[in-house]
Amino acid sequence: MSEKNLEDILKRVDQLEITKETSILSLINSLKNAGFNAKRLALACEIYNEMINDEECIKFFGLAGALVPAGMQRVVHDFIKEGFIDILVTTGANLTHDLAEALGYHHLQGGAINLNDLNDSDLHKAEMNRIYDVFMPNKVYEGIEDFISNLKIPDPQMSVSSFLRFLGKALPKDSQSILKICEQKEVPIFCPAFTDSGLALQLGFHNQKINLNHFKDMLEMVNLAWDAKKAGVCFLGGGVPKNFILQSLQFCPNSAMYAIQITMDRPEPGGLSGATLREAISWGKVNENAKYSTVISDATIALPIILWFLKESQRKKKI
Amino acid sequence: MSEKNLEDILKRVDQLEITKETSILSLINSLKNAGFNAKRLALACEIYNEMINDEECIKFFGLAGALVPAGMQRVVHDFIKEGFIDILVTTGANLTHDLAEALGYHHLQGGAINLNDLNDSDLHKAEMNRIYDVFMPNKVYEGIEDFISNLKIPDPQMSVSSFLRFLGKALPKDSQSILKICEQKEVPIFCPAFTDSGLALQLGFHNQKINLNHFKDMLEMVNLAWDAKKAGVCFLGGGVPKNFILQSLQFCPNSAMYAIQITMDRPEPGGLSGATLREAISWGKVNENAKYSTVISDATIALPIILWFLKESQRKKKI
Amino acid sequence: MSEKNLEDILKRVDQLEITKETSILSLINSLKNAGFNAKRLALACEIYNEMINDEECIKFFGLAGALVPAGMQRVVHDFIKEGFIDILVTTGANLTHDLAEALGYHHLQGGAINLNDLNDSDLHKAEMNRIYDVFMPNKVYEGIEDFISNLKIPDPQMSVSSFLRFLGKALPKDSQSILKICEQKEVPIFCPAFTDSGLALQLGFHNQKINLNHFKDMLEMVNLAWDAKKAGVCFLGGGVPKNFILQSLQFCPNSAMYAIQITMDRPEPGGLSGATLREAISWGKVNENAKYSTVISDATIALPIILWFLKESQRKKKI
Amino acid sequence: MSEKNLEDILKRVDQLEITKETSILSLINSLKNAGFNAKRLALACEIYNEMINDEECIKFFGLAGALVPAGMQRVVHDFIKEGFIDILVTTGANLTHDLAEALGYHHLQGGAINLNDLNDSDLHKAEMNRIYDVFMPNKVYEGIEDFISNLKIPDPQMSVSSFLRFLGKALPKDSQSILKICEQKEVPIFCPAFTDSGLALQLGFHNQKINLNHFKDMLEMVNLAWDAKKAGVCFLGGGVPKNFILQSLQFCPNSAMYAIQITMDRPEPGGLSGATLREAISWGKVNENAKYSTVISDATIALPIILWFLKESQRKKKI
Repeated sequence: MSEKNLEDILKRVDQLEITKETSILSLINSLKNAGFNAKRLALACEIYNEMINDEECIKFFGLAGALVPAGMQRVVHDFIKEGFIDILVTTGANLTHDLAEALGYHHLQGGAINLNDLNDSDLHKAEMNRIYDVFMPNKVYEGIEDFISNLKIPDPQMSVSSFLRFLGKALPKDSQSILKICEQKEVPIFCPAFTDSGLALQLGFHNQKINLNHFKDMLEMVNLAWDAKKAGVCFLGGGVPKNFILQSLQFCPNSAMYAIQITMDRPEPGGLSGATLREAISWGKVNENAKYSTVISDATIALPIILWFLKESQRKKKI
Repeated sequence: MSEKNLEDILKRVDQLEITKETSILSLINSLKNAGFNAKRLALACEIYNEMINDEECIKFFGLAGALVPAGMQRVVHDFIKEGFIDILVTTGANLTHDLAEALGYHHLQGGAINLNDLNDSDLHKAEMNRIYDVFMPNKVYEGIEDFISNLKIPDPQMSVSSFLRFLGKALPKDSQSILKICEQKEVPIFCPAFTDSGLALQLGFHNQKINLNHFKDMLEMVNLAWDAKKAGVCFLGGGVPKNFILQSLQFCPNSAMYAIQITMDRPEPGGLSGATLREAISWGKVNENAKYSTVISDATIALPIILWFLKESQRKKKI
Repeated sequence: MSEKNLEDILKRVDQLEITKETSILSLINSLKNAGFNAKRLALACEIYNEMINDEECIKFFGLAGALVPAGMQRVVHDFIKEGFIDILVTTGANLTHDLAEALGYHHLQGGAINLNDLNDSDLHKAEMNRIYDVFMPNKVYEGIEDFISNLKIPDPQMSVSSFLRFLGKALPKDSQSILKICEQKEVPIFCPAFTDSGLALQLGFHNQKINLNHFKDMLEMVNLAWDAKKAGVCFLGGGVPKNFILQSLQFCPNSAMYAIQITMDRPEPGGLSGATLREAISWGKVNENAKYSTVISDATIALPIILWFLKESQRKKKI
Repeated sequence: MSEKNLEDILKRVDQLEITKETSILSLINSLKNAGFNAKRLALACEIYNEMINDEECIKFFGLAGALVPAGMQRVVHDFIKEGFIDILVTTGANLTHDLAEALGYHHLQGGAINLNDLNDSDLHKAEMNRIYDVFMPNKVYEGIEDFISNLKIPDPQMSVSSFLRFLGKALPKDSQSILKICEQKEVPIFCPAFTDSGLALQLGFHNQKINLNHFKDMLEMVNLAWDAKKAGVCFLGGGVPKNFILQSLQFCPNSAMYAIQITMDRPEPGGLSGATLREAISWGKVNENAKYSTVISDATIALPIILWFLKESQRKKKI
């Protein structure tokens, strides 16, 4: 491999230009020819768009992190509404926050206040729970308790995903709730660590006999992965949602052909949340010929950009 | 507050000296008077030692991350053996790796090889699963399958923690297994995302009727937290183990009076794994008068140092 | 402070919506009401726009990191062309890469190649220098050497910033070079670690008597800070550019009233690059009443978005 | 490559055991057989020890970050005293803090205070400058000014390193100062961004004609690198010290055969401070056959451990 040869193979870095004609589509297309995380973000957009255009592809979406409190509920909602997600795996916390908003409660942010003036002891006295720079009033739990305690659960041994579908049905129609839109669009929600949530605590307190069947979910997920002719995965953060999707793909005939991860965790300490997608190739979870991109970015920045790009791309396609 | 006043209140930074008399105890004691993460690590050591010496304190330990593959199985084992952990919450992955070692399998590392010469596609062909710079041969799953398929599970609706105690009993005596020592020392293991693991997959494949009761675990954990006169928490990484411990403390009369976290995640993106312990005060999970320290460090570096310090401190105390 | 009071003071988190009317202005305005780094990015956009609209404000811009190789030369160029930067402080590396592009050379990226297939030993043999996922062919140095060796330096004891202005003049007119546009717009460039660069090495090899006066730069910078009725600062990365701007503000009557930082470094290890802007208040470098925002993001993602927002905001203002 | 073959090549991960016989030597030796950053730290210890034992090796040490305020002045001092460093490259800030301690001033830490109760505005009023969780009283500058204003600088055009040697000579004998021990042991100090420091500001204010020759340093450094039969490098943090050492090695016949980096920065955003040592192979700065280890750790944790290991190893060797 000589310098000459390499120069033939490599591509010139384009110096990005922002003009008054710049659109989300032109921006992302230009960034593909840049470097570092800008390029990775552009690749993630392109790969996700290909996943959508590939009719055979089943799109698994792993959602960790506190996205609803940070104002991303509607963004995730729209991913589902637009058909960009086929199977959702998430945390109990995200569902608890989603339920809170669906029931008419709200998360709060500092607005004009300097957050450094808010002391956590004072916040505790004011019954205001802090999630970095956003807040959830404690009274939200009362609303959730009211709602949960009135549910007539059809089968105490149903799977968690069946219960979540039942929950979605019970929610008011005109909402931007993730639970609701999943039920409406028949997108299954898996939540392997469901009992690790405020929602499950209320459920357990009010239904001493409940024993939602987590194993049924696990096997159903494996079946969904097994049946997928082609799989695509997108992970926001890592955690249980990432692992649960990947373990289902591990023993299936078809590993993921498209893979995207948005994370701020780093790979060197060896945890799955920061692990590269490339590592998943050794496990047979991601295919060695897959298109993949790991974007090191806060999801609150990357996700709206990706959604904007996808919506515009799909709109253009239809025209 | 004048410079004069502040200087009276603040303390001089000691310039650390390493001599031939340096011991783990003297090193940590000196680092308490340093800055940055060295100071935080020294505080974590001191706080953990106080937890141990405080007979009223129930010590909750949240263990995430791939510590067994990285060579930390025995370190965790010894925390339990020495009585430094009363209640363990961990991931299915850690238990799967622990079981593998208990059954006589081993994790591997590069030794003399330059790991950059190992390609993930080649690793996949060689059936060698990569976890950053360590490896688990795929055949481990066969051993786990053999073991699991022969288990006579007493009750398909038992709690996960009861099942894990049953599993510990079934393991050979002379092992450094976490499952085994927990059973021997009667330390309960909680694993809220149990079905997110290779161990649970094998269990589900071979026991179609199994429905381990995750809600029983959840409520038992709340009861343990409720009964604790004084609670202390130590988190390696974040994830489900951290949240599960904290949610149990949230609604209890006594929030944690001691709190330690070892993590490489960062707080700004708002995820729980990187959240500061101070934030947990607003939720009433950590007490406003608690002693706490968050150490930004790879657990494989910090944990052996903490164990070394604790063992020496306790040995000195007995003399 | 009761929950009631707090709820009056705090603001509702808006759930962001992406529609076909979404523009860069509407996106950023919505994100101000979100959380985490999305909110911080929106605040950074707003603060920068205010700096521009504040006619008294002198805008100091600290530029570290390898932004030119990553495709951001034109973006920085446009910040200067549009009048968004009054004083630039940067690294010798950025100027070396800028000069390379100005002389007609290019940086390269992988294009269709899987970068994991490129081995650093092979790259070395092919004389291709790697900067994460972009590349600079070694022959660039020959072009720089040709150019530098033909310069007639007017005064071997001139300041570094005078030399850089002289260098800008010597460059071809029609370029997107940072050196060129700074000379054209009379924006001074400071480069305190100039001798830490390929550019300076060539200069030193060919001009044994050169002794550019770094102290003149240092004092000139202090004078510029002293004279600023109002100062605003924006840091991409940290390093020497950040410290050099802040040390100039430390002993001046007016500390910064606006402050922005885009960085991926973290604060806990105590280095300046990851230090929060709030810490700079204790030093009197940033004013206690300043508007400030630290965005934890790769600059290659955040900077194009900020420029896009600023250009559109300024365009709307003129209409 | 089959699983069989790979298993022959790979090595078993040893499960680390801490006993009452554990010493710093046994701990590090065990961690070589672990994974993640524990292994990297053990490798760094081993590589540094080899560098010391290799009589041909010239040991370049790049020191960034605020190590003196964090209590690591004596640790760096001892690296020099023991002969573990041949050439030191550092920041003006480190030298300013070193000078402050050498003149009898001290850095401060919180001691019993909860640092969250200290507000940066209040600190500013109290003239107490914050560096994460340590503090430098503003009056230190007065002491430095007194000292600097009384210096009789022999040659205003001397190199920075000559000036720093002169400064070391002027300091009191019995001190743990880095400047002093370097002068005593004839270890040259390079400081390419010298004018980016409080020390240089005072120098410039009191010596309007000073023009320390930075180019002389640059060329001297290249000569030192050129003459090194074998080079070894160790970087704490990145920044200018890392780049300055590496640029000197780039055009020399012998690139580094040993390389260590301790950093908390990450590689993906493309900055040099987080760049892997492997990347430096493509530039010819690190040799393709070099032994190298990048440890992702706060230097305040890693550096004392490495010094402890090296001192004990060398002591054992002499016996």
